[in-house]
Amino acid sequence: MEQEFKLALCQILTEENKQETLDKAERMIRDAAEHGARVVAFPEMFACPYSHPYFRPYAETEGGPTVQRMSYWAREYGVILIGGSIPELEKDTLYNTCFVFDEEGNRIARHRKDHLFDISLQDGTYFRESDSFARGNDICVFDTSCGRMGVAICFDVRFPELIRAMALQGARLIVLPAQFTVSTGKAHWETTMRARAMDNEIYFAAAAAARNPGKGYKCWGHSMVVGPFGDVRAQADESEQIVYADIRLADVDRVRQELPTFLHLRDDLYRLPADRKT
Amino acid sequence: MEQEFKLALCQILTEENKQETLDKAERMIRDAAEHGARVVAFPEMFACPYSHPYFRPYAETEGGPTVQRMSYWAREYGVILIGGSIPELEKDTLYNTCFVFDEEGNRIARHRKDHLFDISLQDGTYFRESDSFARGNDICVFDTSCGRMGVAICFDVRFPELIRAMALQGARLIVLPAQFTVSTGKAHWETTMRARAMDNEIYFAAAAAARNPGKGYKCWGHSMVVGPFGDVRAQADESEQIVYADIRLADVDRVRQELPTFLHLRDDLYRLPADRKT
Repeated sequence: MEQEFKLALCQILTEENKQETLDKAERMIRDAAEHGARVVAFPEMFACPYSHPYFRPYAETEGGPTVQRMSYWAREYGVILIGGSIPELEKDTLYNTCFVFDEEGNRIARHRKDHLFDISLQDGTYFRESDSFARGNDICVFDTSCGRMGVAICFDVRFPELIRAMALQGARLIVLPAQFTVSTGKAHWETTMRARAMDNEIYFAAAAAARNPGKGYKCWGHSMVVGPFGDVRAQADESEQIVYADIRLADVDRVRQELPTFLHLRDDLYRLPADRKT
Repeated sequence: MEQEFKLALCQILTEENKQETLDKAERMIRDAAEHGARVVAFPEMFACPYSHPYFRPYAETEGGPTVQRMSYWAREYGVILIGGSIPELEKDTLYNTCFVFDEEGNRIARHRKDHLFDISLQDGTYFRESDSFARGNDICVFDTSCGRMGVAICFDVRFPELIRAMALQGARLIVLPAQFTVSTGKAHWETTMRARAMDNEIYFAAAAAARNPGKGYKCWGHSMVVGPFGDVRAQADESEQIVYADIRLADVDRVRQELPTFLHLRDDLYRLPADRKT
């Protein structure tokens, strides 16, 4: 198993035309692979404008062309691919789903967003994701050639129990395809990502979309990688780019020895969200 | 019940002489009361230098003079007093204990630190609190004339389950007497306090000691009050001072409506640390 590897977050600008976005995504993944990335992640809904009228027309099944193409990318460029998310159609139900592929293109994990983004802020920020999507029912942890990882999607990150459950189950790198708004991004993005990393003493990587300069949903951007001490290893601004970070899994062990919060958990006093499985 | 009230955090500089510290503490609480504070909090070990050789000589029982004096202060100045913490002796065992008093001087709550500060960082920061203290066994939530509150102490804050348990049990303001080091303070203080506030959509207030300019333990200071959206309402530097903030409990309800994470908790998917009790 690789103990040290390069992670790439593709902060892609989603085009209205799905094929155009997918072609660009392939150029980005090729670029990342040429730069030595072993793990590549895309943002939430990276090939679908983040707006209700697009979700159903852009939806595909797991057997559809986008998932097939992602599998091909993983194999062709020899990377572990955290495939952001797509509007996934199963029967008549839509899910906000991330598919994960190993270097041979095998689909090794699937996460359907567990917590849907239903908010209504006093500044006018409003979204009801549950108008389009059904929620998932999984805690997504999986093994790779670069260790055990976890995936959650965007609003899922606001629930520390879910992230803790993945860490207790042995995930040492958690990747979060996301699309925070400008308003919640400014207020909560960096603090939340850093808190999840430092509370669980893991690597936490959030892959956001680039900010659309035109009309429509404004993503905060700022894809970032946080180390297990809560230290920001890399962070983008809001423009289209690839963010790289070197992951050293030994840092997780070192931080857990220095500041052994995992050892001190009081499951005699409060319930832990999941059983330990390492 | 008061829905709006002023909170004061007394960032006191601990003197070597306990009586001197206690006399100064009384001046600070009087000052805070004169400025309209309804709730006043002191830091962890506010009247005892934070170092092993001091803990046992400075220890007192719950019936001892410091607890009696705090009760008198609460009554005399008409405030709810979160009494930081003292080295508490029961039989031959030491605890790091916070006593809480209502405006009549009644002792309405007691929290013994649940998670002891045992760390050993690569930068040389080292402390083993468990060499002196035994850990407590409580989740400290209590009702006051200013609503339901909770208390945890310093290292307790690194365990999101404990804070979530208090929020699930209805605490809308949690006060944390603390003594982060300069090194962990710089790395984690603000992020942790803000994360606990925003994840639970509560007020979170951390009362630190002022930084000792001489030898010995260096406290980060930076006593702070965070609102339920994770917004920093007030924050000190490292010098001796009183930090004030206006608490409006309606903000908790507003934020929980705007961004209803409490509604979306998936206890079908992961365990919550405690049962809801509101």
